[in-house]
Amino acid sequence: MAIISKTNSGKSKAPVAKRGAKNVLTEKTNRTGQTRKISDKQGGSRSVTKVSNAHNVKDTVKKLSNLKFYALGGLDEIGKNMYVYEYGDDILVVDSGLAFPDDEMPGIDLVIPDISYLLKNKDKIHGIIITHGHEDHIGALPYVLKELNVPVYATNLTIGLIKYKLSEHGILNNCRLNTIKAGNKFKLGAFTVEVIHSNHSIADSVMFAIHSPVGTVIHTGDFKIDCTPIDGSMIDLAKLGELGKKGVLALVSDSTNAERTGYTMSERSVGAKFDEIFSTATDKRIIVATFASNIHRVQQVIDSAVKYGRKVAVSGRSMENILIVASELGYMKIPKGTVIKLDEVKRYPPGKVVVCTTGSQGEPMAGLARMATNDHKMIEITANDVVVISASPIPGNEKMISKVVDELFKKGAEVIYNALDDIHVSGHAKTEELKIVIGITKPKFFIPVHGEHRHLMLHKHLAEVMGVPTKNCFIMGLGQVFETDGKTAKINGSVPSGKVLIDGLGVGDVGNIVLRDRKHLAQDGLIVIIISIDSVSGEVISEPDIISRGFVYVRESEDLIVEIRKRTLEAIADCSYERYQKDWGALKIAVRSHLNTYLYQKTKRSPMLLPVIVEV
Amino acid sequence: MAIISKTNSGKSKAPVAKRGAKNVLTEKTNRTGQTRKISDKQGGSRSVTKVSNAHNVKDTVKKLSNLKFYALGGLDEIGKNMYVYEYGDDILVVDSGLAFPDDEMPGIDLVIPDISYLLKNKDKIHGIIITHGHEDHIGALPYVLKELNVPVYATNLTIGLIKYKLSEHGILNNCRLNTIKAGNKFKLGAFTVEVIHSNHSIADSVMFAIHSPVGTVIHTGDFKIDCTPIDGSMIDLAKLGELGKKGVLALVSDSTNAERTGYTMSERSVGAKFDEIFSTATDKRIIVATFASNIHRVQQVIDSAVKYGRKVAVSGRSMENILIVASELGYMKIPKGTVIKLDEVKRYPPGKVVVCTTGSQGEPMAGLARMATNDHKMIEITANDVVVISASPIPGNEKMISKVVDELFKKGAEVIYNALDDIHVSGHAKTEELKIVIGITKPKFFIPVHGEHRHLMLHKHLAEVMGVPTKNCFIMGLGQVFETDGKTAKINGSVPSGKVLIDGLGVGDVGNIVLRDRKHLAQDGLIVIIISIDSVSGEVISEPDIISRGFVYVRESEDLIVEIRKRTLEAIADCSYERYQKDWGALKIAVRSHLNTYLYQKTKRSPMLLPVIVEV
Repeated sequence: MAIISKTNSGKSKAPVAKRGAKNVLTEKTNRTGQTRKISDKQGGSRSVTKVSNAHNVKDTVKKLSNLKFYALGGLDEIGKNMYVYEYGDDILVVDSGLAFPDDEMPGIDLVIPDISYLLKNKDKIHGIIITHGHEDHIGALPYVLKELNVPVYATNLTIGLIKYKLSEHGILNNCRLNTIKAGNKFKLGAFTVEVIHSNHSIADSVMFAIHSPVGTVIHTGDFKIDCTPIDGSMIDLAKLGELGKKGVLALVSDSTNAERTGYTMSERSVGAKFDEIFSTATDKRIIVATFASNIHRVQQVIDSAVKYGRKVAVSGRSMENILIVASELGYMKIPKGTVIKLDEVKRYPPGKVVVCTTGSQGEPMAGLARMATNDHKMIEITANDVVVISASPIPGNEKMISKVVDELFKKGAEVIYNALDDIHVSGHAKTEELKIVIGITKPKFFIPVHGEHRHLMLHKHLAEVMGVPTKNCFIMGLGQVFETDGKTAKINGSVPSGKVLIDGLGVGDVGNIVLRDRKHLAQDGLIVIIISIDSVSGEVISEPDIISRGFVYVRESEDLIVEIRKRTLEAIADCSYERYQKDWGALKIAVRSHLNTYLYQKTKRSPMLLPVIVEV
Repeated sequence: MAIISKTNSGKSKAPVAKRGAKNVLTEKTNRTGQTRKISDKQGGSRSVTKVSNAHNVKDTVKKLSNLKFYALGGLDEIGKNMYVYEYGDDILVVDSGLAFPDDEMPGIDLVIPDISYLLKNKDKIHGIIITHGHEDHIGALPYVLKELNVPVYATNLTIGLIKYKLSEHGILNNCRLNTIKAGNKFKLGAFTVEVIHSNHSIADSVMFAIHSPVGTVIHTGDFKIDCTPIDGSMIDLAKLGELGKKGVLALVSDSTNAERTGYTMSERSVGAKFDEIFSTATDKRIIVATFASNIHRVQQVIDSAVKYGRKVAVSGRSMENILIVASELGYMKIPKGTVIKLDEVKRYPPGKVVVCTTGSQGEPMAGLARMATNDHKMIEITANDVVVISASPIPGNEKMISKVVDELFKKGAEVIYNALDDIHVSGHAKTEELKIVIGITKPKFFIPVHGEHRHLMLHKHLAEVMGVPTKNCFIMGLGQVFETDGKTAKINGSVPSGKVLIDGLGVGDVGNIVLRDRKHLAQDGLIVIIISIDSVSGEVISEPDIISRGFVYVRESEDLIVEIRKRTLEAIADCSYERYQKDWGALKIAVRSHLNTYLYQKTKRSPMLLPVIVEV
């Protein structure tokens, strides 16, 4: 079946494609979008589109062009995934994710891809297809859709999460969201997209087979091979095999775990661990922290709770929201009466309740950290708690998590975390699974994506082991264009790419100079030197005023401040010509250089120096 | 044998204890210190002191007091180890280490313990005994000895490293260093210190049995049980057993690896891995990055190099220095002609040379990172290199290391690092080893140290498993005083403790307010608003000047700057009374609050606002 359901609001007056219409391009429909609320049970599968046989497209469309592929995010980084397929005048975007800032970006909230190339080619874009609902794949959508209101295609749960996100940004009503599901096949310009069921740490994850006039590309998205997933449906390896037999032009594959040998364990193995903990800690309250989006993990907590007679309460806005979305859409099975409100927890004996919370990465504002630091309104940690942190640290978060674990230990809680026990499994394929996907799809060209450079290289080595010739493996950088006519391929130029930093409401207004200043200020602080100068005589009128922040504790450094005043006057005295010429720029440079030398000798620090000349 | 060798310079006129004198307290000797250079073969064991039988001390000295123990560093942290034993008027300090700053301390170079309590009790201190030569055990010595010039006792290699450190700070000549060795027993006030051979990731590490009038404390320092160490000498478990049989009052033990089950592998296992790499990569240059202080690791690189016919070059000042110290003192065996200079590397075919370098933690200024980023004068990484990172990330360094690994991959090098292979072993005991030491010493009281809170708690659990009653296990915080009369023990009050931050030449001049400002500046930058006011009329004379750094890119935010000027004037206009009263403080507060509200609404950011009033 090739079905696309477009979740229009009942009131929408936009044109709706006829049910069962053949070869209707979905992107022709409904430009005004839909506003159906997550809890709205009406609407649903209104628009159905069918593609008779996507593989025929290859034969019927003239080969006018080469297929191009490039990444605007997701190469040399794990985060802000955004990949683009271009054929002639048709552009198809896969995912639109965000990244979190690193240490080099103080004060920055989020990072999204630079989409200036897409904006220039707005009219060519037929839509954004989404592999799954993680932030690094959907998080940039609100920002991207504000500038580029193209249709979005995603599976049911993913659409639910996107809707929530867009409504937070107040743009849900203007966006065009289309629900797809595994098995669907639909046409977007020169491309026919086939949706393939996959396994990952969030439900409803899919891969795409992107059929173009020059051949088929398999774009895996994030995946693992889970033979016993919680939703019962293993990744559709048979479909990958079928495509492989027909001929796969290129495999664009997830490299996250290319460093890790072997197989990733099934999500189900965590459930067995939960059962073990629940069956042992019978008299204690259990608190489980995990990723809000991992609804299968939360489902397993609920399953264990039901099995061992505990109620479940949820802490953390994101987890509450995802649970509502997931259960309304039927992705979770929660027996009636299982979930209680957080403020009801204290009414139950510890052994009869489990709290599911966010904050598994030690985020200071999330549920777990608040509980650990006595900053949570409802839950206080005691020696009667077993805290399970069902997650592994995302690189860079190790110290934050350790801090929270230490606080939990200080409260006397028993803490079960990744250093001590296996209470988490990855959502990404390890080397053996990666090799299986390469082996079953038998791609002509191989492009590892979704990884730091080392992951891409190690993934490439796996492809070589699996028989893909080295010259057919392409390690690309952001913006670099992979181009193929279906027979040969090469890197051919590049499109603009980069980071757009989001700070508060500012999108892109913080650049390298601002970041450099922030880092400088963080290192050594600043000194403002206010110099009043007679505008006629050019003479300094009074002692310079000195203001310092983040440099030294001024009250204990009065001698230093006196010396700074003295040295400022010295520097100015040396610049009599500049003063009479009123070349305040030169005067400032002289003051800065004189003070800089003095302060570095005296303190081995280099605070930012801001001389201000006030003409009187 | 109970021997202490004091490395006096030949010229010293200080009194020297008589050879073989019994019960002479070493701290009575030589107050003017020694300046013998590391390369000076003269001097040596000049002063010999003997304690007839330390255990008799217990019987002969009257029990006048209780034994106190507290930590000034090393609890709830891994770093700045400093532990204090106090009996009556006698104080004995163990170790004097530094810590590296965390994310909450921008711009800070080092952290050392607050020793204000020791300074107040200067005259009671008989010396600092050092377990081993790592920075977190000796790094604070230069700062501590400047204020507190007490004798230091350490083993040969450790003394060598301390000397280098003190001479860098220009205070070597004033310090009193005493060389001790395993098997020594010497008296320091009420204490008799017995030196016990140990294993760790630096040679010449020791434990101490500290005999006091109320009983013996075993202070492990950092240790592991290595049955096949490179120096051939396994930790002296027999001595620990002997002490255990006689009765150990308390065990103060290393908790670093209390999270990790099982046994730490022998250092020798890394050598086998080196051999494997050297025997395979016959045509490639090998670069090994490891900790400079791990001379056994470097020895094994040299051994493999000799075995497979390679020359060895060393990059990195700290590694060069330690190699000089270690080989001069006989801790390394380097066959003649093996070591070449770094600038000679290029004269040899890649397969005939190995480079040993610093930077295994990804430190941007160290050898490996410089090589990876083409910033190294002598070594450029190519596809003909095998880079071995023989270390595991110290928590917090994961991202720095990843960056370097990625750069190395980009240069085409083969990189062997901890995520891919076992090319490093820890220097710390894991759970089974910790249990052995508890089991063999059978302490009455157990005090886990050298760890974050979770490590201390997990180590305590191990002691409980080994039969130490829960009430006899003491999880302490910094400064908290453990007090025992030899029969019972309790936590009894606390002494001042804390962090002293070192920034450039400043010791302790950066406190919480300065750090808070630095963090604020890093997050959102600052805006300086200069307002000229007529000192007579109180009127604003001209448009306010606005200077911003780290907030927005000013050239692209002119509207915002114009608005800030306008709002400043508005705020001042609302304060006519304050102007006429010249209450500039109130005026500044008004400007700050007005602008803060505006800017947060407009940008969701809160830059630091610095209004400056210039009276004209």
